[in-house]
Amino acid sequence: MTGAPLPPIDGIESAAVVGLGLIGGSIARDLLDRGVRVLAHDSRGDRLRAAAEPPLDRIQLVDTLAGVEGAELVVLAVPVTAAPAVLARLLPHLARARLVVDVGSAKRTIVAAAEVLGVGERFVGCHPLAGDHRSGWEASRAGLFTRAPVYLCPSPSTGAEALARARALWTALGARPELIDAAEHDRLLAWTSHLPQSVATALACALDAAGVARASLGPGGRDATRLAGSSPEMWAAVAADNAEALAVALAGMEAQLAALRAAVEAGDAGGLRSFFAAGREWYEER
Amino acid sequence: MTGAPLPPIDGIESAAVVGLGLIGGSIARDLLDRGVRVLAHDSRGDRLRAAAEPPLDRIQLVDTLAGVEGAELVVLAVPVTAAPAVLARLLPHLARARLVVDVGSAKRTIVAAAEVLGVGERFVGCHPLAGDHRSGWEASRAGLFTRAPVYLCPSPSTGAEALARARALWTALGARPELIDAAEHDRLLAWTSHLPQSVATALACALDAAGVARASLGPGGRDATRLAGSSPEMWAAVAADNAEALAVALAGMEAQLAALRAAVEAGDAGGLRSFFAAGREWYEER
Repeated sequence: MTGAPLPPIDGIESAAVVGLGLIGGSIARDLLDRGVRVLAHDSRGDRLRAAAEPPLDRIQLVDTLAGVEGAELVVLAVPVTAAPAVLARLLPHLARARLVVDVGSAKRTIVAAAEVLGVGERFVGCHPLAGDHRSGWEASRAGLFTRAPVYLCPSPSTGAEALARARALWTALGARPELIDAAEHDRLLAWTSHLPQSVATALACALDAAGVARASLGPGGRDATRLAGSSPEMWAAVAADNAEALAVALAGMEAQLAALRAAVEAGDAGGLRSFFAAGREWYEER
Repeated sequence: MTGAPLPPIDGIESAAVVGLGLIGGSIARDLLDRGVRVLAHDSRGDRLRAAAEPPLDRIQLVDTLAGVEGAELVVLAVPVTAAPAVLARLLPHLARARLVVDVGSAKRTIVAAAEVLGVGERFVGCHPLAGDHRSGWEASRAGLFTRAPVYLCPSPSTGAEALARARALWTALGARPELIDAAEHDRLLAWTSHLPQSVATALACALDAAGVARASLGPGGRDATRLAGSSPEMWAAVAADNAEALAVALAGMEAQLAALRAAVEAGDAGGLRSFFAAGREWYEER
């Protein structure tokens, strides 16, 4: 980071980031830039330590989850299906933590787990809508969250102080926090995020099965399949975690395709016109 | 157009463009810039004449198809289902035409029609892979075809001279011509173009039915639905014209979604991992 130092974050002098992927890595960079001391654990710690280019050289990589001990902020940035077990293993080491957050794309399971594990008062489930199909530490960058919406999902017992800290954290990172119930978040995101991801991957698989390479697509087809490049680990976990709502969204998509195919097979010019017109109308409403 | 004039196109001093949408309009602009005299007919001729900003003021708008009489090059740039009938109506006025092309996204029907209408020797079906979801004269621009692949589909009786002219035309416009059989083109494009378009629109319709606005999507979801903004007239026509091949591609896509939904409903972690991994593998092969 060059230029003027960024202002510190109220009440957060030390943080531990568990998982240095796209989101965890970007949070670590942003925290460093704001003068926060950053500890980090990643299952690929050796590989990261071997890299050690800036700003990795300013992050204190620890080999075990116990190494996060002492951090005031703990950020869980692992695949959503792994998050509850990792949180359970972190429990004995959260004595000084005043705020614990996760950053996964599905929220109901981890928020419920935090409650059950007795860390609910200090926990806020978070989901920043940032990044694209790229993943991993290599794709992480300072400023990733600038102007990004971030959903905040408190647990039933989240304290006002923890929620205020979570707001302050994301606001300091340039994001726009928005409060939402965890179950409602998952129902909404099944449509706005998990379905588009699933459709892009399904389209990639359909093209693959037909022997069609991405290089033979035009700009539109490349746009439509860009999300297929996303992390399989992350998305398999999200799909499993938010299965119920995603299955409903997938069924809705299948119904649209079946109706379209019926119109195509019947040579139904009016039906085809209505179908493409409805899509454009939705598109233009923004 | 400012700057140095572009070189003329061998053997083409006058052209008629029928349909001043995105593709026809861009061809008209490019031809003007290369010193070709451009006549044009469009069903919205009045509206275009009322606009009359450059370079429309240099295009000779004609009210009827008969007005194209005398052009050496005739470009058919209308929706694919309308193209055969328009070509038939143009027939009495093609006495001086040495090359007749269309620019539609499906090729078998129009190439067969040209053959049946007796204009096959001078006809080359063309499909430039250019543009995006925008449509209409307003979206047209000079240079649209720079580095764009263009499929050339001769009819059984297309002459060597006409094919050479078609190559020269597209090369002069900066595009990269590629010869392909019309039926093979349609089977290929059903996958590379018509399916991605249909999937993007179906996703838009599914989100619409769920009451989800495009504004609530992240960058990935916006990419995945960008094509939904495309011209309904154009795409309803393409879907109808290439129905057989598109129905096969749609069925392939439905099968992928059904398999995904089964894995989601069964909580099949391995199956989900394989699905997203296969999509990424395809994506990374480019």
